Amino acid sequence: MTIKVFGYTASPYVQMVCYVLKELGLSYEIFQPTTYEEIKTPEYLATKHPFGRIPYLDDDEFHIYESRAIARYLVNKYQGTKTSTVLIPSDVQKAALVEQFISVETSYYNEPLFKMLKQFARKKYQGIEPDLKIVNEAREELEKTLDVYEKLLEGKDYLTGEFSLADLLHAPLTLYVINAGEGELWNKRPNVSRWLKNITERESWKNIVTEYNLTA
Amino acid sequence: MTIKVFGYTASPYVQMVCYVLKELGLSYEIFQPTTYEEIKTPEYLATKHPFGRIPYLDDDEFHIYESRAIARYLVNKYQGTKTSTVLIPSDVQKAALVEQFISVETSYYNEPLFKMLKQFARKKYQGIEPDLKIVNEAREELEKTLDVYEKLLEGKDYLTGEFSLADLLHAPLTLYVINAGEGELWNKRPNVSRWLKNITERESWKNIVTEYNLTA
Ligand SMILES: N[C@@H](CCC(=O)N[C@@H](CS)C(=O)NCC(=O)O)C(=O)O
Ligand SMILES: N[C@@H](CCC(=O)N[C@@H](CS)C(=O)NCC(=O)O)C(=O)O
Repeated sequence: MTIKVFGYTASPYVQMVCYVLKELGLSYEIFQPTTYEEIKTPEYLATKHPFGRIPYLDDDEFHIYESRAIARYLVNKYQGTKTSTVLIPSDVQKAALVEQFISVETSYYNEPLFKMLKQFARKKYQGIEPDLKIVNEAREELEKTLDVYEKLLEGKDYLTGEFSLADLLHAPLTLYVINAGEGELWNKRPNVSRWLKNITERESWKNIVTEYNLTA
Repeated sequence: MTIKVFGYTASPYVQMVCYVLKELGLSYEIFQPTTYEEIKTPEYLATKHPFGRIPYLDDDEFHIYESRAIARYLVNKYQGTKTSTVLIPSDVQKAALVEQFISVETSYYNEPLFKMLKQFARKKYQGIEPDLKIVNEAREELEKTLDVYEKLLEGKDYLTGEFSLADLLHAPLTLYVINAGEGELWNKRPNVSRWLKNITERESWKNIVTEYNLTA
């Protein structure tokens, strides 16, 4: 049975899942909702995602939602079966540091980026000008986070030293906001920009960018 | 070597870690910062938590920060060694559902609660009146989340059916906000209040409440 991913390919959270699938060498099919309303119907809420979000995943009738939980599930089940990529190491301490940086991503990186994304998406899909106060505050928050990343990445290619799920999860939202014209935030920090290059130049991510037409 | 937890016992994130430690039957020592400024010093940022937060954990010289990552680390390393509590099951699908609900907690539950907590804490520690607009918006957001929980918990004692790390992580912030006078939000929903009772009546949580004097 092919793995089914439900969600828009334009969604960074869907892209996180696709990036994991490709790194693990798994084939999948994407099912895009026909309208935004579809993910808010009683049927969708009752059987797919009770909070009305995308993505959710169907793996041979096993259903699961929430991107980072889906990612961990795929790693636990399939890592090492088709490719040699290690996204979560088996060593308990190494795995703990991957989890630490996943939490860093969720707590300090994702938040300002998602705030910016919402403003840029409003513009793109509804023609409403972004609220510059929100964008500026989010940018300031992100600057602080990236200052810390710049230190954390000193002398390192990846957050834990080696490529992991923690790095991978950063790629999609970052690309989205860079495409909206904010690339300078990453470029002006040498360690951060080197790291970002390492993450976004992997074959599987480049395939996603091409397949889903994610370039600016 | 005893496990060392650094942070205030009044912090819900520290309490999450303590709750895990007790469920796993591990002894630990708490080190409370003497001042708030201590967690913002260059030394603290460089060696403890680069984002200037609590908690962090030191397990025989292995350092890790971010509450949920610490929790997973403790489970991976110690689950089953001292008690029979299972916080993350070994079955891949069952573990995936625990992760799904941890992400639900982080994405839809923690956010409005933490917004409320910040307002209530301002009042408690600095004597500044809470911003009622923020409290009301957060309460509204939380009402929506709890409506979904009420459905998810229909006929179930716990989120995945069995007690897990996902349930546990909800306890501390919930108690904090209930102590601030918001208990009705949980009480008026029968499934939610039954679930909360199940989580907060466990021996290890009751010990934390007594030891750290968390009752209203
Ligand atoms: N915590 C969720 C976030 C997913 C999410 O917010 N997805 C967006 C698309 S980028 C969505 O479904 N938005 C619909 C909405 O918020 O109404 C995850 O990690 O999967
Ligand atoms: N994402 C962190 C959050 C921890 C957190 O925000 N802790 C609060 C105490 S409740 C803190 O350190 N606040 C200090 C500050 O924000 O300056 C975790 O899960 O450990």
